[in-house]
Amino acid sequence: MDEIRRSKLISTYRDGLLEDTLPFWIKHCVDREHGGFMMSLDRDGTVIDTDKGVWQQGRFTWLLGELYNNVEQRPEWLELAKHGAQFLDDHCFDPRDGRMWFHVTRDGKPIRKRRYAFSESFAAIAFGELAKATGDQRYAERAKRTFQRFIDHNLDPQGTDPKFTDTRPLRGLGFPMITIATAQELRESIDLPEANEWIDRSIDDIRQFHLKEDIQCVMETVGSSGEIIDHFDGRTLNPGHAIEGAWFIMLEGKLRGDGELIRTGCQMLDWMWQRGWDPQNGGMLYFVDVNGLPVQEYWHDMKFWWPQNESIIATLCASLLTSDPKYERWHRMIHDWTYSHFPDADHGEWFGYLHRDGSLSSTLKGNFWKGPFHLPRMQLVCWQLLAESSE
Amino acid sequence: MDEIRRSKLISTYRDGLLEDTLPFWIKHCVDREHGGFMMSLDRDGTVIDTDKGVWQQGRFTWLLGELYNNVEQRPEWLELAKHGAQFLDDHCFDPRDGRMWFHVTRDGKPIRKRRYAFSESFAAIAFGELAKATGDQRYAERAKRTFQRFIDHNLDPQGTDPKFTDTRPLRGLGFPMITIATAQELRESIDLPEANEWIDRSIDDIRQFHLKEDIQCVMETVGSSGEIIDHFDGRTLNPGHAIEGAWFIMLEGKLRGDGELIRTGCQMLDWMWQRGWDPQNGGMLYFVDVNGLPVQEYWHDMKFWWPQNESIIATLCASLLTSDPKYERWHRMIHDWTYSHFPDADHGEWFGYLHRDGSLSSTLKGNFWKGPFHLPRMQLVCWQLLAESSE
Repeated sequence: MDEIRRSKLISTYRDGLLEDTLPFWIKHCVDREHGGFMMSLDRDGTVIDTDKGVWQQGRFTWLLGELYNNVEQRPEWLELAKHGAQFLDDHCFDPRDGRMWFHVTRDGKPIRKRRYAFSESFAAIAFGELAKATGDQRYAERAKRTFQRFIDHNLDPQGTDPKFTDTRPLRGLGFPMITIATAQELRESIDLPEANEWIDRSIDDIRQFHLKEDIQCVMETVGSSGEIIDHFDGRTLNPGHAIEGAWFIMLEGKLRGDGELIRTGCQMLDWMWQRGWDPQNGGMLYFVDVNGLPVQEYWHDMKFWWPQNESIIATLCASLLTSDPKYERWHRMIHDWTYSHFPDADHGEWFGYLHRDGSLSSTLKGNFWKGPFHLPRMQLVCWQLLAESSE
Repeated sequence: MDEIRRSKLISTYRDGLLEDTLPFWIKHCVDREHGGFMMSLDRDGTVIDTDKGVWQQGRFTWLLGELYNNVEQRPEWLELAKHGAQFLDDHCFDPRDGRMWFHVTRDGKPIRKRRYAFSESFAAIAFGELAKATGDQRYAERAKRTFQRFIDHNLDPQGTDPKFTDTRPLRGLGFPMITIATAQELRESIDLPEANEWIDRSIDDIRQFHLKEDIQCVMETVGSSGEIIDHFDGRTLNPGHAIEGAWFIMLEGKLRGDGELIRTGCQMLDWMWQRGWDPQNGGMLYFVDVNGLPVQEYWHDMKFWWPQNESIIATLCASLLTSDPKYERWHRMIHDWTYSHFPDADHGEWFGYLHRDGSLSSTLKGNFWKGPFHLPRMQLVCWQLLAESSE
């Protein structure tokens, strides 16, 4: 990558993060009356639903702590991270079983708990950053305990009706992937003792059960022994999700100096780029069928913001780690397509939901799934990777 | 409506039903090996998922019985209806609690049960038609018992974790609407003694809780006292669904000679046509927000087949019952838009899923939701209404 493009990209990512994404959210989402963050925003930042998604409370708290610990010790960021952690503590755990809610009212009354436990993974990394930022061991204990709850519930769910019978047990890519990212964060923030063990175990699971060399594919959902399930659920691929997993593994390889891990991550990217890139309109499709058959999910061919974010990170990461010009080309393709369709020139930040052809489907800036997470994480990780590589 | 258009429409609906829709499904979905029907078909009728949705088993069985009882006593239709009922009996009830499954394997092993009980409503009307067709009282008993299970579980769910806490109790349009249609069918097929009582009660509930004169709207989901809930779920309207309810109530008014019911149904249609018709591209949108805000569901602006089917029935029904020329105009708009976008000229039957602009999103002809139900019901009801009106 030439120096001019590198420096232009750094400023795109860094300035986008610090002067657009972050100010947009800080200005509009902080709830000074009831604590926490209201993330359901229309394009101009108007709150259109005061309910609070618990994932988002943890994710924004994590981001603020991550920025404080790694970018600059701005008191505002630390204050807001504590504000988020306080709401998590006060309202997001069910005292009856210690599990976390998924959806609460503005003032923290519970609306919904899910069968799975991803609220816990995001809260854990939020508490971890606060432990590092403040040196307060109570945050570190909270982070460890919440990580353990995430692990325990996913391995052996208690107190919830299973969604499916045991006729056809399935294994999803989500749990090992999120475990890698969560353990990576907690290793960095609180030096979690079992982090490497969980990362190794999760990468092994992905390699053993989800990577299919013969068909060049990362399967999102497989049978309990990794067999391909020839039904809608089993055939449905989520290329953006697999590509997110790819860069988690590449970065692990980079950190450990392990070329095998980098090759695994690049292989996942190679396979899923081929399957997910939309040759007709550009951008990454949401779902595709492993055999090219129709997908049952209605939004399969829409362009969501986050698969583009993950693909931008993964292609940049692969480009910098391998110097293979293919990855620089891919990074340019996905970066340019994404930046020409998602940013909102009028009100800042990005739209989240486009039709296949790139036209706008919804003006929503945030909801239970879109918030200050994938976009600012992409901006931060890409800025960091480029800055390191030019040192 | 002039006689030429009427007779052209009759042949469109009747011939579409008898020469296109029905042969497509009979040719492709009948499972002679394991019983029941495989409905997950690609555009040419290829089975792409052998799993069986229980709703669809009941719905197609009902349709076959309905045609046998009301159109022509074709032995093939009766044989296939019995074939469907046999699979329902053999594999679709959970012996542990008497509730029905939602999703089973090709050979009838259970995969999933839902928290709600709509499998029961469709199975009940299927058994009802078979009772009428065969005179066999065992089918009638089965119909009554299954209807009672549908009612009981919806009023007082047992043995399922509720999806939400009791912080914000909600009331949906689905239960009273499906209760009306189910009771109407069972009144006709087995003369269900409590049918009128359930229909009256359900119409009262819809009037009391869901119809909002002041804002000219049918609310899909309200609080337990009918209050509007100013959050995503509460603001989300489903115009095609409300319009389906509108024609159930119009037909009840027609049957009883009750002008008030006809006016209620027309009012529901008037309000929701204004909210659901897409002035930009034509056709009925899937979801819209009561205040014009963004909707959270990703497929909100797609054009699904069934809201168009329901709108075709409701506008025709209103036109024939009131002679208001507005309804004939609306019927022409929705009929013409739908027939110019959904039918598959190459392989017959209709596509189910279009983008907002009418372009194809998926080639699927069937899945757990699309099968031989909304389209053939529209063809049958519209044919019958037009034929009666020209007598």
